[in-house]
Amino acid sequence: MNLKELLIKTDVRPYAMSARFGLEKESQRVTLDGALAQTEHPQILGNRSYHPYIQTDFSETQMELITPVADSIMETLRYLAAVHDVAIRSTGKSEMLWPLSMPPRLPENDRDIKIAKLDKYEDILYRRYLAREYGKRKQMVSGIHFNFEYGEELIARMYKAQEECKTIEQFKNVLYMKASRNYLRYRWLITYLFGASPVSEWGYFTEEENRPTEPVRSIRNSSFGYRNREDVKVSYTSLEEYIDDIQTMVENGVLSEEKEFYAPVRLRGGKCMADLPKKGIRYIELRNIDLNPFAPMGIDGDTMQFMHLFMLFLLWTEEKEQADEWVATGELLNEQIALTHPFAQITLPAEGDRIFSEMMDMVTELGIYGQKELLTTYQEQLRTPEMTISGKMWTIIEANSNTELGIVYGKEYQSIAFERPYQLAGFRHMELSTQVFLFDAIQKGLEVEILDENEQFLKLKHKAHVEYVKNANMTSLDTYIVPLIMENKTVTKKILKQAGFRVPGGDEFTSLEDAERAYLKYENQAFVVKPKSTNYGVGISIFKDGASGKDYLEALSLAFKEDTSILIEEFMEGTEYRFFVLDNEVKAILLRIPANVVGDGVQTVEELVAEKNLHPLRGTNHRAPLELIQLGELERLMLKEQGLIISAVPEKGQVVYLRENSNISTGGDSIDVTDQLDESYKKLAIDAVAALGARICGIDLIIPDKTIPADKGAHTYGIIEANFNPAMHMHIYPYSGTGRHLTMDVLKLLYPELFEQSDSI
Amino acid sequence: MNLKELLIKTDVRPYAMSARFGLEKESQRVTLDGALAQTEHPQILGNRSYHPYIQTDFSETQMELITPVADSIMETLRYLAAVHDVAIRSTGKSEMLWPLSMPPRLPENDRDIKIAKLDKYEDILYRRYLAREYGKRKQMVSGIHFNFEYGEELIARMYKAQEECKTIEQFKNVLYMKASRNYLRYRWLITYLFGASPVSEWGYFTEEENRPTEPVRSIRNSSFGYRNREDVKVSYTSLEEYIDDIQTMVENGVLSEEKEFYAPVRLRGGKCMADLPKKGIRYIELRNIDLNPFAPMGIDGDTMQFMHLFMLFLLWTEEKEQADEWVATGELLNEQIALTHPFAQITLPAEGDRIFSEMMDMVTELGIYGQKELLTTYQEQLRTPEMTISGKMWTIIEANSNTELGIVYGKEYQSIAFERPYQLAGFRHMELSTQVFLFDAIQKGLEVEILDENEQFLKLKHKAHVEYVKNANMTSLDTYIVPLIMENKTVTKKILKQAGFRVPGGDEFTSLEDAERAYLKYENQAFVVKPKSTNYGVGISIFKDGASGKDYLEALSLAFKEDTSILIEEFMEGTEYRFFVLDNEVKAILLRIPANVVGDGVQTVEELVAEKNLHPLRGTNHRAPLELIQLGELERLMLKEQGLIISAVPEKGQVVYLRENSNISTGGDSIDVTDQLDESYKKLAIDAVAALGARICGIDLIIPDKTIPADKGAHTYGIIEANFNPAMHMHIYPYSGTGRHLTMDVLKLLYPELFEQSDSI
Repeated sequence: MNLKELLIKTDVRPYAMSARFGLEKESQRVTLDGALAQTEHPQILGNRSYHPYIQTDFSETQMELITPVADSIMETLRYLAAVHDVAIRSTGKSEMLWPLSMPPRLPENDRDIKIAKLDKYEDILYRRYLAREYGKRKQMVSGIHFNFEYGEELIARMYKAQEECKTIEQFKNVLYMKASRNYLRYRWLITYLFGASPVSEWGYFTEEENRPTEPVRSIRNSSFGYRNREDVKVSYTSLEEYIDDIQTMVENGVLSEEKEFYAPVRLRGGKCMADLPKKGIRYIELRNIDLNPFAPMGIDGDTMQFMHLFMLFLLWTEEKEQADEWVATGELLNEQIALTHPFAQITLPAEGDRIFSEMMDMVTELGIYGQKELLTTYQEQLRTPEMTISGKMWTIIEANSNTELGIVYGKEYQSIAFERPYQLAGFRHMELSTQVFLFDAIQKGLEVEILDENEQFLKLKHKAHVEYVKNANMTSLDTYIVPLIMENKTVTKKILKQAGFRVPGGDEFTSLEDAERAYLKYENQAFVVKPKSTNYGVGISIFKDGASGKDYLEALSLAFKEDTSILIEEFMEGTEYRFFVLDNEVKAILLRIPANVVGDGVQTVEELVAEKNLHPLRGTNHRAPLELIQLGELERLMLKEQGLIISAVPEKGQVVYLRENSNISTGGDSIDVTDQLDESYKKLAIDAVAALGARICGIDLIIPDKTIPADKGAHTYGIIEANFNPAMHMHIYPYSGTGRHLTMDVLKLLYPELFEQSDSI
Repeated sequence: MNLKELLIKTDVRPYAMSARFGLEKESQRVTLDGALAQTEHPQILGNRSYHPYIQTDFSETQMELITPVADSIMETLRYLAAVHDVAIRSTGKSEMLWPLSMPPRLPENDRDIKIAKLDKYEDILYRRYLAREYGKRKQMVSGIHFNFEYGEELIARMYKAQEECKTIEQFKNVLYMKASRNYLRYRWLITYLFGASPVSEWGYFTEEENRPTEPVRSIRNSSFGYRNREDVKVSYTSLEEYIDDIQTMVENGVLSEEKEFYAPVRLRGGKCMADLPKKGIRYIELRNIDLNPFAPMGIDGDTMQFMHLFMLFLLWTEEKEQADEWVATGELLNEQIALTHPFAQITLPAEGDRIFSEMMDMVTELGIYGQKELLTTYQEQLRTPEMTISGKMWTIIEANSNTELGIVYGKEYQSIAFERPYQLAGFRHMELSTQVFLFDAIQKGLEVEILDENEQFLKLKHKAHVEYVKNANMTSLDTYIVPLIMENKTVTKKILKQAGFRVPGGDEFTSLEDAERAYLKYENQAFVVKPKSTNYGVGISIFKDGASGKDYLEALSLAFKEDTSILIEEFMEGTEYRFFVLDNEVKAILLRIPANVVGDGVQTVEELVAEKNLHPLRGTNHRAPLELIQLGELERLMLKEQGLIISAVPEKGQVVYLRENSNISTGGDSIDVTDQLDESYKKLAIDAVAALGARICGIDLIIPDKTIPADKGAHTYGIIEANFNPAMHMHIYPYSGTGRHLTMDVLKLLYPELFEQSDSI
């Protein structure tokens, strides 16, 4: 079957690049000086019996990070980045992930290399068998497993364009078998470009004679790597022969199980191999990619992009020999490339050029956009071995040492992960609360899926239990009517009032005439005029000592410009506190203070602002828990009102406000006061939220004097507003006071089963 | 205490008109020829043991319609109108409500006047006692009970402005006692203006001698009315004496219970009279208002407005004599006014003028807006008795008969109630579904409260069970995340696809460049380009046979004008059906057909449209289940495309479409096809809605051929959209096919307890 002809067809071509990806990446946990960690797998990471993303491979120290299957490389890498962030931050600052495929210096005593402490006894038994059969040390090598699936639509359209195969499963098998054979034939190029295990640390090789004497491109991909014994031989001529060979070896005891077959290519799909002929191969697993120490996650986008094009090339290019010969040639070439010096020129540049030239043609003929530069870059490496990964590594190792290479990059990647602990790598465009929530969900071992990134829409899954979550706080925990109640200020107030709570008195008006007529009522009292539907924004006028008729009318017309309904409300004096109530508990109370600096008698306002803006929690555009304080027009005006300019030097202790409003988004400070407010206020907030029927709610109370308990006086409080989409990140990372990890609390409510046996959250 | 001085104070005055109202209105159920109904209270009206709005008074035929307490007259009257609508439509077309205070012609035999069949035995015993004591016939008289409460803020501010009373309860008692005494003193004016029982029908008076010989203003308010025996005497000097007198009479057996005291004024608050001194009188019940046959609900807004001002006047005006004398004078004057001929001039115009003059002063001094015209109108009636209600009645009775007056107006009001059965009087500004839902809720005996009229926001209550409902379909039945899922087309499609349902394939784009690049994929297939967030509206382009590059780019820019995200989706051919799924059942399936007429070979298009528009369900502005078909530009263009103009005469049977889109809002027809679609499609809709987690959902399926079951083919259906706010009225009142009473189904889900014992819904 000529797959190239199928690919070129008009209605196949546009789908050529559709594919699915999944990565597994192993790394050894090490101390900061590069010794194998002696600690257990971090307990905070939930339970390995179900964790979908963070597992351990052979040893307790060998973390295996797994991405979900994704439709694009970008998606795959962002998941890998996120899982890295979670793994590293959960491991703590005293350890790091070893960035090299070859393990760090191993302990002298085999007993100090601990087999992963898994729940299932059979998993431990299998590892004990491997330790006996291959030795513990050989197992400590790490790498990337690259799972690749041709796009469903691509396969369907190719299948439709041919007639030889009678079922799509049959067709898939033809496709993946060709890809596998060609991969084995050409994988020397992958080893050349991406091989990254030039030397080993002490303790990896036990027999002095049986090891490379020179630095090489990839120990891991050579015969010195971790691989099956020589009598393990499998034919790729057909899927049937492949399966037959493996099954025979298992029956004869050459292999203990199917999965002990360590080829650089594995055919996947179905629960066991025997399913493949009928179900069809679903995807291919490439196991020969070394960890790239120059990529924070062990692999970068360019490598993945090249691998994708290479996979397409494997269908595109003709097979020129019988299968077994073809594969055997590939083996020989690969061994040769793997075991030559990283700086050595290759002996077969012509075949390399042919591959790239065919790939160029393919990209052109299939109309694949913007990949030529990438191909050119890699093609150039054919003649500049020092630019390959192993080449670059050797440059460093030669000048320093392999250990130092590992430690320097390992530390670097660890410190990046801790740099902005409120963010989650890969998802930095999402809202902060969602980033923290995703972090928590990944940490605890929930399957997460981003259904809509711009809308902060997540799907969570644990076993059969699915939950959808938006903005990290909109969940199935609340009923639909609850946010509708809170969205409507009039309805919220009516319900709270009927339940006996103190809310600002007032009226709703839908006609200017009626509103005008109410002037007499408000003339002499403190009141607020506001549009009904907007939140603290435009169209609001506050009169703390009554208003003249003229000002009143102006306020009305201002409010009516924003909405067809306006509210005139009693103005309540006091300090506003945000209570975050979750499932009948006050989880956090926050005080928000307008942007300010405190004088030291030395620095100018401008210098004080610059200094305060150095705070690690301050950033811009809502991607940090606090915003940078600005010195724009509004701030200068505010200074002016206090008789200051930005070059003035405030006295020691003098609080200088830069803003009138207390929004965090305009540089305000968030102060956690959860432990400072009287229980009576907490009870009040809980009861009010219960009256609204909500389980997740941010409720704003005005409290004139917090030293007087809520139940000890007439006007001790007023309820201003209830928010069904309350920001959580400002409680988690306040400017001062204790952070309250609310996202984990929400997660706990959604998935109590994950927390029942866990000791810590 | 000078209450007038308190009222005038600056911070009291603006609150003078704040008040609360409640009405109870009795009416006899009669046949269309004016005979007392012999049927039972309609079973469809739920259970009288808890029904808050529709009860029976003395007899099984005497409906008592009760409004909830409301803050304004408008609010009170709209509830009364709604309760009327429900009562009349639930009673059916073969009976009506007798619009007069004096009962219709009563049966010869007392046994045919049936005591109300109430659940509680003590209620029946009390009615039996009344029948023995006063006779059944006297009990058959009907009227309005007007419950009035001075506004909370008004009382609080008056209380604050005085010093005599030490508690607000004490102050309330002073207030209401003065109002009561003055009411009794001046109530002759109410009898004069609103008295409306000039004559009686056969069978009301049993003794020939003891009845008025001439027509009068108000039999009901005279000594011939239904009142206590002469030895029942109560002093209004103070609350204490009032209570003491009544309690003594109950002890002495002059009265059987407190409630047997039938004064025109009752002091209310607390569970029994003994509570009043401590708890304070909460409101006053005025019982002397006759049914006004010229008002569809027995009382009109002007009467209520006058009563309100009159209540304020009762506080404003001085008491000039000792309490008992003052009240006794009032009694005499009232009896005199009640028993004079409706056309007779009154003997004391001076006192009348003084009352009006004082009321005018009061309105001026308190700054009460726009009431002078009303006062002038009523003042004029002091000298034009034929303009009073009893005067107008007598004009008609003299020329015809009292029976005819009752029948003509009774029928008129009945026919109004049935005119637009899809609407609910008093709430016609709300959405149709909410109107029908409110009707159902009132019918079944739920307490309803409109929390926000413009937002269709309701509160329902039955015993302790409260539910909030928006748009009649947004409830606590669904969780919050469900509408968020449906609101997001991408998320909805992902979830449905993951669950195995067929949804249009496609992509979401947030950049024009990426969207442009996808052209090759769509070039040759049927597809739709649409903005992500809007519903079938602007920005949508449909290409049924692929698109040229130019058209494609145009469609992209059109869609991107509406949203920052656009969708390009496979276009699915077939007929679109709306499935309304409620709690895992398909309750209705609707087919929507574009505005059309069917030719008869005689009439022009214009005539056919006019004829079709006569359909009782067609109206404008969404206040009818179907909209009028227009003949605007779009319709004329559509005609032109079919080679027609509006004066053309289509052939017999020729279907002429006036619109391309099938929206009901542009004149489309709604066709119920619930019983016509295969069970397999219903199962599909139910399963899809379940996958979205919804309990209330309108889901749109494209079905190319409904004769092929959903599970018998490859592409038998496609799911287009799921709607979390599906219109219900179009299913309840379709253009053709069976109406599906969905609002009642929703109610049943919310309040299963109301339906458990009920036989019919």
